[in-house]
Amino acid sequence: MNILVINAGSSSLKYQLIDMETEGVIAKGLCERIGTAGSVLRHKGKGEEAVISAPMPDHNAAIELVLNALTDKNHGVIQTMGDIGAVGHRVVHSAEDFDRSVLIDDRVLAVCEKNADLAPLHVPANIMGIRACKKVMPRTPMAAVFDTAFHSTMPPRAFLYAIPYEAYTDLKVRRYGFHGTSHMYVARLAAAHLNKPIEALKIVTCHLGNGSSITAVDGGKSVDTSMGFTPLEGVPMGTRSGDIDPAVVEYLAAKTGMTLPETINYLNKKSGVLGVSGVGSDFRDLSAAEKDGNIRAVLALDLFAYRVKKYIGAYAAAMNGLDCVVFTAGVGENDAAMRGRIMSGTDFLGIAFDADANRNFTRGTVFEISQKSSRVKVLIVPTNEELVIARETKSLIG
Amino acid sequence: MNILVINAGSSSLKYQLIDMETEGVIAKGLCERIGTAGSVLRHKGKGEEAVISAPMPDHNAAIELVLNALTDKNHGVIQTMGDIGAVGHRVVHSAEDFDRSVLIDDRVLAVCEKNADLAPLHVPANIMGIRACKKVMPRTPMAAVFDTAFHSTMPPRAFLYAIPYEAYTDLKVRRYGFHGTSHMYVARLAAAHLNKPIEALKIVTCHLGNGSSITAVDGGKSVDTSMGFTPLEGVPMGTRSGDIDPAVVEYLAAKTGMTLPETINYLNKKSGVLGVSGVGSDFRDLSAAEKDGNIRAVLALDLFAYRVKKYIGAYAAAMNGLDCVVFTAGVGENDAAMRGRIMSGTDFLGIAFDADANRNFTRGTVFEISQKSSRVKVLIVPTNEELVIARETKSLIG
Repeated sequence: MNILVINAGSSSLKYQLIDMETEGVIAKGLCERIGTAGSVLRHKGKGEEAVISAPMPDHNAAIELVLNALTDKNHGVIQTMGDIGAVGHRVVHSAEDFDRSVLIDDRVLAVCEKNADLAPLHVPANIMGIRACKKVMPRTPMAAVFDTAFHSTMPPRAFLYAIPYEAYTDLKVRRYGFHGTSHMYVARLAAAHLNKPIEALKIVTCHLGNGSSITAVDGGKSVDTSMGFTPLEGVPMGTRSGDIDPAVVEYLAAKTGMTLPETINYLNKKSGVLGVSGVGSDFRDLSAAEKDGNIRAVLALDLFAYRVKKYIGAYAAAMNGLDCVVFTAGVGENDAAMRGRIMSGTDFLGIAFDADANRNFTRGTVFEISQKSSRVKVLIVPTNEELVIARETKSLIG
Repeated sequence: MNILVINAGSSSLKYQLIDMETEGVIAKGLCERIGTAGSVLRHKGKGEEAVISAPMPDHNAAIELVLNALTDKNHGVIQTMGDIGAVGHRVVHSAEDFDRSVLIDDRVLAVCEKNADLAPLHVPANIMGIRACKKVMPRTPMAAVFDTAFHSTMPPRAFLYAIPYEAYTDLKVRRYGFHGTSHMYVARLAAAHLNKPIEALKIVTCHLGNGSSITAVDGGKSVDTSMGFTPLEGVPMGTRSGDIDPAVVEYLAAKTGMTLPETINYLNKKSGVLGVSGVGSDFRDLSAAEKDGNIRAVLALDLFAYRVKKYIGAYAAAMNGLDCVVFTAGVGENDAAMRGRIMSGTDFLGIAFDADANRNFTRGTVFEISQKSSRVKVLIVPTNEELVIARETKSLIG
């Protein structure tokens, strides 16, 4: 069976068609600029990448183009829409309504709509993607796979903020966490690599990309994670501040004349390693600038590594133990220098880091970068959120 | 020599007169409701506490009453103002202008005034206290002892936020930290108790009171601390939220109709263990409520303990080592149950906690609550910020 995985943003739509027999990707692509001029579909199926410029006034039009591309005589990979057994949708936020993936029906859609204002940049777009698919494939089963669901096992001491309890009960303000599919996936692969039951392991998973989050996985369950009510909290990111004294929000607004929404936008879009370095949000650009002697780039990289290290220590203390540290996502999988920075001076945690292995790692595979003698194992584990969504979808239509 | 220690708030003024030969407190007291009706001075010198109701329209009047009380024939302890060798003033914020205590002259006062808007609730009051003292004791040397100075040794990776660098250089937004005199004092006493040079020790000091902060003291220097740009950041406190996703500020304001200043006030005054429990900000009340089976009190205590534990772990990782954990201030010194909660399940950190010693501790003295075999020592160390201020003042006047 083939499963179509959809990740719909407000003006973009990513997809993969996965053959569940082999778990291989048979086609994938990206619609950009939906709803604006110059919209384009980049599709990779058979042969070369096809770049299809076509008007996409809305997500309905985008999905129709995707289905046309998938069934196209030249670069298509399937005969008809009927060759898509199910669709798995990434939905960013489940609030406390879903603690696992679910088949989508009208009730599920209504709950997602109710929760849209918890993630106003993401959930409405996710819903548009779902509705567009249901319109053109009304009989195909569809599943919602939530970024937050894996973190639903956090205990109250980890998910509550120290604010009036009514803000939690009435306004739903709490830590939710994100990147759940990724943290779950890499933790399970790590356990498999270590050949131990995940129930017996204490793992800190570091999903380090343009957005970054760290999760404490104890016995296979998320018990704490660094992103919070929104993806702004936690370690610094490409353009996000991560943790900061909340009183800074008031001070910045008063000093600069920014409104409150402008100030939060400043923390989301102009901060992080971009803000500190002045160079950019891409860690490859920071590394290049560091080599050129750019001191602010060095500050940004040091700050990032230090804050990740503190989270690893905090979560090791929270779990009262640490068996494995996992690096994943763009920076975690590919930036050996950053991994080395984070892991420098970690023998107190029981880590004997293998700097040579770290430098000479093999991409695209689970790879050990701690020494054989290391009590705590350090692994690079390539993440694959689309595969998680496809597997969850398959298990639901089971 | 006697040194008068002054801690001036906006409507209050605390003082101690300390005999520096013995370092004993020979008088102390508190002016309350300065500038409002019903102002009162509670003075403890010779004999019983004297409660002196008298108008205190401003800090000048308060200081004059204090000096009268100190030289009073009945409850006074000195003959004349001339028996006060120097005055040490607590000043909450030094920005980056002072990395140690200084003698107060016009330049110092001008710098303090320049920095007042970094701590608008505290520094203007501190300055009022200084001016009032200078008015009545123009020839007495005076020192400013800053809450932030001990933290001036933090490296940029610890004090920078991941926001545009210009917010640091132009607007002075960074982590400053507070409770510096307390963290410095208890770290040094801990080293003395352990009979080791502080330069060789990695200590985490937990100042847990109505306001709480945790500091990483590496080799005698503060290398990181949990309070930030303001005392709002860090662990939860009596009424302060501590760390929280900054995006919550925008969401709460939008949902409740609070203005931005009202929202930050909500995080400062209505949050913390008060907000979670609904019981109060005093940990003794929470403990009582817990015994009565109040579930929200248990949540608040668990949340507090968990967040303190995470900071201890984070700082152990930051220092790549941990030799000693110190508990101080009201909660840290007196709340055995809370210490036990924080220290439960910390053997990963190298801590063998002594629950019996913790329960049967002796108040008012440095007291060890880890087992003899514990690699990491855990100590209760009573803090004494007034004594630090007096000592600093004495060393400055040579």
